[in-house]
Amino acid sequence: MRNIKLIIEYDGTKYSGWQKQNNALTIQEVVENAIVSITNENINLIGSSRTDAGVHAKGFTANFTTESKIPAQKFREAINSKLPNDIVILKSEEVDINFHSRYHSTGKIYVYTIINRYEPIAIGRDYVYHYKNKLDIELMKRASKYFIGKHDFTSFMKKGSSVKTTVRTITRLDVQKENDKLTITVSADGFLYNMVRIIVGTLIDVGIGKIKPEEIRNILYSKDRTKAGGCAPACGLCLVEVLY
Amino acid sequence: MRNIKLIIEYDGTKYSGWQKQNNALTIQEVVENAIVSITNENINLIGSSRTDAGVHAKGFTANFTTESKIPAQKFREAINSKLPNDIVILKSEEVDINFHSRYHSTGKIYVYTIINRYEPIAIGRDYVYHYKNKLDIELMKRASKYFIGKHDFTSFMKKGSSVKTTVRTITRLDVQKENDKLTITVSADGFLYNMVRIIVGTLIDVGIGKIKPEEIRNILYSKDRTKAGGCAPACGLCLVEVLY
Repeated sequence: MRNIKLIIEYDGTKYSGWQKQNNALTIQEVVENAIVSITNENINLIGSSRTDAGVHAKGFTANFTTESKIPAQKFREAINSKLPNDIVILKSEEVDINFHSRYHSTGKIYVYTIINRYEPIAIGRDYVYHYKNKLDIELMKRASKYFIGKHDFTSFMKKGSSVKTTVRTITRLDVQKENDKLTITVSADGFLYNMVRIIVGTLIDVGIGKIKPEEIRNILYSKDRTKAGGCAPACGLCLVEVLY
Repeated sequence: MRNIKLIIEYDGTKYSGWQKQNNALTIQEVVENAIVSITNENINLIGSSRTDAGVHAKGFTANFTTESKIPAQKFREAINSKLPNDIVILKSEEVDINFHSRYHSTGKIYVYTIINRYEPIAIGRDYVYHYKNKLDIELMKRASKYFIGKHDFTSFMKKGSSVKTTVRTITRLDVQKENDKLTITVSADGFLYNMVRIIVGTLIDVGIGKIKPEEIRNILYSKDRTKAGGCAPACGLCLVEVLY
């Protein structure tokens, strides 16, 4: 029995997220079926996280155990040959039999992309959030500093989510601008449900002057979801790396 | 009677190019229909060029004459409200009644994007050409110099195309690399049919060592299409600006 780790890139546009569901197409199901068609085994593909419908990934990780004799590195091409063109295995390798994509993850890096211009965007529209009102990048940068560190992120979690702890540590939150493209990079030891998208929605409220940068501190203290901004659309979000 | 100039962005993936055709969906037809539904006039939308099926644009230009009383700048939003989300009017303005998008163009700038890595690409795959064999960027940069200037580009035109002259002047041909993304920017006073895509196909042959950089000169002199490289796929090509 061997444990195979995969690094996966996917365009989440057409999918109802990673996690298998009845009556909805998911990335987990498509990749699992591809592996099953190669190994003829029952496969349980363990994903590093549950990305939402429409969220993309450049470095999602997953693992599965197999009795197959296929060399670990060969799984990449074998699985790719069975996948649609919006899902790609970037790497396959053998890992310790105890490795678990979700439990052993020590952190994740997400990037959220906003196109900030009045006119809608046609090219690449599935991978960005088009926001037409002018955003003040300097205010957003100032606000981003308040998120860094270990905090209770209850205000930045979808209400009603069940988790053991709502404390997470953000190690990096960068807001960068290149022409009309804003890139928000967030690195943390873990993320609550919708956390990145609510942080982005709140930074947008800061960018339009609705929330002051220094108010972020009180929003965190309040542990009240209604104090934070909205949940930014899924299409702008991309999981770029899972850390171990 | 007023003459309205439009700047248009489009994702060409689903379309059979710009130019109207029977039994095929084209960008010209979709934009014309949108304008007709606003003005209730017969509209003849003149495009700056005929982009091929699958080619994209960030700055295509077109113009039409109208008796409508809609302020020129208001056409942008009015037309956008009637367009699918893969076509966007970026700007609408009144221009001289004699202005003609195609005849008056003094040049165009195209960008061709290659993702040069072994693994296929899922995110943004409709906007790039995935090329898996390693390309030597330095050789490609050296080769690009030979294209600059006024030349007969018969070797770089789809065979059988009918044009008055096959002489064009390339003012810029830059090959840039950022991680696994290669960007080839070409500026010229005009382009022959498939010219950018054949130049790119030839630069790829240079990048894999099949053609030497200094051979470009002889390929130009030969006026023989078979001496140049293949025609790179449409999806990697984007018309970024039409000059006047």
